[in-house]
Amino acid sequence: MEFSLTTLGTASAVPTNQRFSSAHVLNVRGRLFLVDCAEGAQILLARNGISHAKIENILISHLHGDHLFGVMPLLSTMALKGRTAPLYIYAPEAFCHTLKFFKDYHGDGVKFDIIFTPLKATEPQLIFSSRHSKVYAFPLNHKVETYGFLFKEDEPELNVRKEFIEKDGLTLKEIASLKAGADVVREDGSVLSVEKYTYKPFTPRSAAYCSDTAPFPQLAEWVRGVDVLYHEATFGNDMRDLSSQFFHSTAADAATVAAEAGAGKLVIGHFSSRYPDVNVLLDEARQIFPETYLAEEGMIFDVPVKKL
Amino acid sequence: MEFSLTTLGTASAVPTNQRFSSAHVLNVRGRLFLVDCAEGAQILLARNGISHAKIENILISHLHGDHLFGVMPLLSTMALKGRTAPLYIYAPEAFCHTLKFFKDYHGDGVKFDIIFTPLKATEPQLIFSSRHSKVYAFPLNHKVETYGFLFKEDEPELNVRKEFIEKDGLTLKEIASLKAGADVVREDGSVLSVEKYTYKPFTPRSAAYCSDTAPFPQLAEWVRGVDVLYHEATFGNDMRDLSSQFFHSTAADAATVAAEAGAGKLVIGHFSSRYPDVNVLLDEARQIFPETYLAEEGMIFDVPVKKL
Repeated sequence: MEFSLTTLGTASAVPTNQRFSSAHVLNVRGRLFLVDCAEGAQILLARNGISHAKIENILISHLHGDHLFGVMPLLSTMALKGRTAPLYIYAPEAFCHTLKFFKDYHGDGVKFDIIFTPLKATEPQLIFSSRHSKVYAFPLNHKVETYGFLFKEDEPELNVRKEFIEKDGLTLKEIASLKAGADVVREDGSVLSVEKYTYKPFTPRSAAYCSDTAPFPQLAEWVRGVDVLYHEATFGNDMRDLSSQFFHSTAADAATVAAEAGAGKLVIGHFSSRYPDVNVLLDEARQIFPETYLAEEGMIFDVPVKKL
Repeated sequence: MEFSLTTLGTASAVPTNQRFSSAHVLNVRGRLFLVDCAEGAQILLARNGISHAKIENILISHLHGDHLFGVMPLLSTMALKGRTAPLYIYAPEAFCHTLKFFKDYHGDGVKFDIIFTPLKATEPQLIFSSRHSKVYAFPLNHKVETYGFLFKEDEPELNVRKEFIEKDGLTLKEIASLKAGADVVREDGSVLSVEKYTYKPFTPRSAAYCSDTAPFPQLAEWVRGVDVLYHEATFGNDMRDLSSQFFHSTAADAATVAAEAGAGKLVIGHFSSRYPDVNVLLDEARQIFPETYLAEEGMIFDVPVKKL
């Protein structure tokens, strides 16, 4: 039942001695999403103990190289290691050219299907749905077509409170009705209310990923109440102009979104190589949103099951 | 006057926790050649203190991804960092597709010329010539068209022995003649011989790079007498069959080439991830060629000036 964000590549466009460019893993109840896949992503996966074989989905936020140059090497390794399980890739439409290039020039030996879904959204759009969770893409405000992602557990089925089952002699039909959210009216006129007889076993967890983007009004609404908000913070207050010019965010911008959205935690990353010490960005963000953390390689931001 | 090989990426097709795939730097009297450029090459350059800005030439041995997936990310970084100096790339002809793809989809902001020279050779072929050195490409024996590279300092101009200049009252014309290698016959019939009056200030240094290849008869001849021979040793004796099947070499194969060529030092690399401890490969090679060393990230195999 794990629900976590692992930060791997935490640099912006140019990797540094310490940081590779963007790569992150969302673990949604055991299902792994690789979110952005910069050069070296497969190396980061390996050295942080995450098997590439377990990656089922790759989500690419936009088509700048520092978010996708790791895809071809990763696909090559998957092929060399004999992968047969299909791989699902979600990215802006022009990513088809990368996949075609890979197939044409490096596709020998690929024995698995690559299923590509082009992203297109002007507001949150469902792109993935499983038995327990959903993923949505939503547009960001960058120089090129860019998407953020929202990962949400589904609302759980209601549980009927055990103490009433025997006490009131609930029938299977009555239990089913209550679990489905419908009050039961018995023949004697008594009402078994959903509110009294059931409880929600847990509150659904959620996480959002926002990189790269300049601030824009709708974003906080789209990620409202997420437990973990990853938001880029390429720059600090000292480079606010540069940040605007390149359609990026400052640490303060990221913190403002987290505060407005009522997020649980904010994780900032995508740091410019201009900041050898990114604690300055952490400090700026924490002044606005204290529950801010730095994305560092191998950090796991786990959201425990939220039982009521 | 540095002449050295720096090994950076030392794994074969699949990088490991410890090793990136192929990337090496030849420093030929201050001129840097990046030889093969796997995923993460720019990261290896940075963390080993080699500025990508100083790379003038990239040589790609063949078009398998583990020898070239680092090119696009490196070019992107060069562009982001404002490079204007031309970059020369030598690779098998079909590499033009990678360059076209890069230009079409990731070439915005590139302000430097990329000059591509397709490799084609059935025997050692001059591909680069500067004031002091030359580089040759020669064919290897791999599954696809593959080239090795030979780096050679030019023969130096002869120096006239200082002690004779005053003693025999050498004229400028006589000095020029001797330096050019021609004996001087004076009017009195006396002969100033090149052999007696001059000396070679140093013996030219050389290094060769051979990856990937199965053994073949001409190779030792083509790299005869090199000071440093880099030769792949993907496998050990235990996987000799696999080595042949994939047109690779074992450590013993590499050592045999070094011994037959009379190389100064052998550096083995391109290790299969099947060998968590590559000392077994070192041991096998040293039984045949004792002056064998392991390619490890950041190792510099320097050839000092060889004064006579």
